[in-house]
Amino acid sequence: MPVYLDSRDAGFEAAFTTLLNAKREDAVDVDDTVAAIISDVRARGDAAVIELTAKFDKLDLTPDTLAFTSDEIEAECARVPEAERAALELAAARIRAYHDRQRPQDMRWTDESGAELGWRWGPVAAAGLYVPGGLASYPSSVLMNAIPAQVAGVQRLVICAPTPGGKVNPLVLLAAKLSGVETVYRIGGAQAIAALAYGTQTIAPVDKITGPGNAFVAAAKRRVFGRVGIDMIAGPSEILVIADGQSDPDWIALDLLSQAEHDESAQSILITTDAAFGKDVARAVDKRLETLDRRAIAGASWRDYGAIITVGDLTEAAALSDRIAPEHLELCVADPEALLAQITHAGAVFLGHWTPEAIGDYIGGPNHVLPTARSARFSSGLSVLDFMKRTTLARMTPEALAAIGPAAEQLAMSESLQAHGLSVRARLDRLNR
Amino acid sequence: MPVYLDSRDAGFEAAFTTLLNAKREDAVDVDDTVAAIISDVRARGDAAVIELTAKFDKLDLTPDTLAFTSDEIEAECARVPEAERAALELAAARIRAYHDRQRPQDMRWTDESGAELGWRWGPVAAAGLYVPGGLASYPSSVLMNAIPAQVAGVQRLVICAPTPGGKVNPLVLLAAKLSGVETVYRIGGAQAIAALAYGTQTIAPVDKITGPGNAFVAAAKRRVFGRVGIDMIAGPSEILVIADGQSDPDWIALDLLSQAEHDESAQSILITTDAAFGKDVARAVDKRLETLDRRAIAGASWRDYGAIITVGDLTEAAALSDRIAPEHLELCVADPEALLAQITHAGAVFLGHWTPEAIGDYIGGPNHVLPTARSARFSSGLSVLDFMKRTTLARMTPEALAAIGPAAEQLAMSESLQAHGLSVRARLDRLNR
Repeated sequence: MPVYLDSRDAGFEAAFTTLLNAKREDAVDVDDTVAAIISDVRARGDAAVIELTAKFDKLDLTPDTLAFTSDEIEAECARVPEAERAALELAAARIRAYHDRQRPQDMRWTDESGAELGWRWGPVAAAGLYVPGGLASYPSSVLMNAIPAQVAGVQRLVICAPTPGGKVNPLVLLAAKLSGVETVYRIGGAQAIAALAYGTQTIAPVDKITGPGNAFVAAAKRRVFGRVGIDMIAGPSEILVIADGQSDPDWIALDLLSQAEHDESAQSILITTDAAFGKDVARAVDKRLETLDRRAIAGASWRDYGAIITVGDLTEAAALSDRIAPEHLELCVADPEALLAQITHAGAVFLGHWTPEAIGDYIGGPNHVLPTARSARFSSGLSVLDFMKRTTLARMTPEALAAIGPAAEQLAMSESLQAHGLSVRARLDRLNR
Repeated sequence: MPVYLDSRDAGFEAAFTTLLNAKREDAVDVDDTVAAIISDVRARGDAAVIELTAKFDKLDLTPDTLAFTSDEIEAECARVPEAERAALELAAARIRAYHDRQRPQDMRWTDESGAELGWRWGPVAAAGLYVPGGLASYPSSVLMNAIPAQVAGVQRLVICAPTPGGKVNPLVLLAAKLSGVETVYRIGGAQAIAALAYGTQTIAPVDKITGPGNAFVAAAKRRVFGRVGIDMIAGPSEILVIADGQSDPDWIALDLLSQAEHDESAQSILITTDAAFGKDVARAVDKRLETLDRRAIAGASWRDYGAIITVGDLTEAAALSDRIAPEHLELCVADPEALLAQITHAGAVFLGHWTPEAIGDYIGGPNHVLPTARSARFSSGLSVLDFMKRTTLARMTPEALAAIGPAAEQLAMSESLQAHGLSVRARLDRLNR
């Protein structure tokens, strides 16, 4: 049974805080194991990656079979039925169109001192995308990671995707092909992250690593951060639906279950101004749960972390939502724009009754790699910017240096950085000669 | 003596690779100590912070004296001489003007399917800036960290600055005041980072932590990453000057020394097309070194990590520069724009003979918090964006859902995420009724 809360109850604040702080993931400490794997890959390269893949994925590889050949990729892609191919192509086109608009602008200007200032953006040279194996091997995630990199202009884009026992999802390879991925390696775990960060005899190192993974992958990404760039460390998925009770309870139930079915640690919360509607949704959840293939997972998530919160009005709902800072936020209300104006922290917002969160997972256009575990307070979903970096530019004229140089010299001297000051002074002295 | 290399020599590639991979920092492993400090602050809050400050900073505080009072700040600020105040105010105004242009645009549009898409940017609610104590307590760094946060619209901006033995730099407090900082805490080290991330009875937690620090601070930031956002982990500073030999060797010598004087681990490299000019610069460095107050530091940096590289032409210089991916890059050549077009990876570029790097440290306008240790390959200097996050937006109409919903349903079914598909299907069925 999910938690039922009512903001007008005496114990609400304590119960809501408990809900906020509920730890949904066991923090398995795999750090020592991961450190050893990374050292091993750094020291022995391909040999270490191959041994670890045999051990963890029961797959025997050689340096020559680390990557899929283009023939293998073509053969797998040919197996994808036409309907699935068409859907994936539409998704890729829509995701590309959305991300195309994220390309940042370069700027140059001359200010009143005569100093020319600005910045210039450029892509990282190489990016590696991690695609988990098994249950969570989602072609949609390949598109969501690779297309922003492609739009950014990343020259070399590779994937690491473990294929335990050699099994591969043809849709993952088709998604890779549709989004400009050059090479797909059949490796996973911390060894794949180490290979991407440091390179091996066969695998060239990359500059940025993105994509979700298990505890080993997450710990490895944290360790190589600094050597390469990484995206956020993703936690279990979550959805918050704010509803005014004018929706079909069955629609809301399915929206809640579409997070719950991801993972037993996923969290689905409904905040509503209509307590009776909340009960209708709960009944609809129970009814739908009976028919779902993944009812064990979805049921556990809903039972352990689900919540239905009744509030007095939508302003209260917005305030609670900001404390949750949800990854996904559905505003199933009559005037979603008015409610949006009251929301500060959310990864992605889905407006109105006709925008189920699942649209955002696949085909809407916005990225589905979003900040979890309240990190929407300070971070954003994956974007083109994650695959680019900015170089700042400054050019002084003699006049500009004469105008602002003395203040730089003063501050350098205040900080006891004499050579800094002298590097300005030497030039100013030339002007005064 | 710095290293002298010539790209036409047989052993160049090996020697350059050695230079690139030179480890300039001892990786002190303080991770266990830091983990213990963070746990202690989480468990005991103020009491732990106060004990650790007494132990490490020889400073006795109480919850009431953790922060400077506004009277204390006013009194310290009043001690700043007028010339320094004026210089700091000019710097603040110029840094603000530059960063004002970085404010990102919100976007909303309707695509051909009728789907309304877009995104919205907003500031993080609270940011904490770390300001090191002692030698590296730089008022310029306060401006460079706090002003982007202020421009972003961050509501609550606080500083942690250790004051060993109670000593405080009045310019740091003035810089804090000029850039909208609400509270300055007299605490430092891993305990300060823990207090900012988790909060104590007195210190409210923040959402983002930026600013440089020692090994303990860096390890603590790495550990709290995810709970809060952090900026990059800064390494020792570095400069690369590319010169065609038409500059005054003394100017270039001072530019090289202005990085070297920061830190014995700093690195200054000159790449020139004119071997004789390289020798002139080396002589000028030696001469200037004799007169510098910080000659011990600057001399050690130049001796251990300095390098002068002769190349055949500027295209070769650009290629080597990209392999270095320098934090600071000066283009002291006749046509710096032409050379800039050949450069891909650099944190900040200083164009032409009249733009010493020190201008960028203080007063040019661009940020001086820049990617070190080759991380300009994938990351950027601090900016307004570091204190903002983006919420993606999507709103389907019934027509839009009819157009693109079936593809989402198809992909959900391909990924065996049945509830995702049903959440779309239930709405589509309503339309078809």
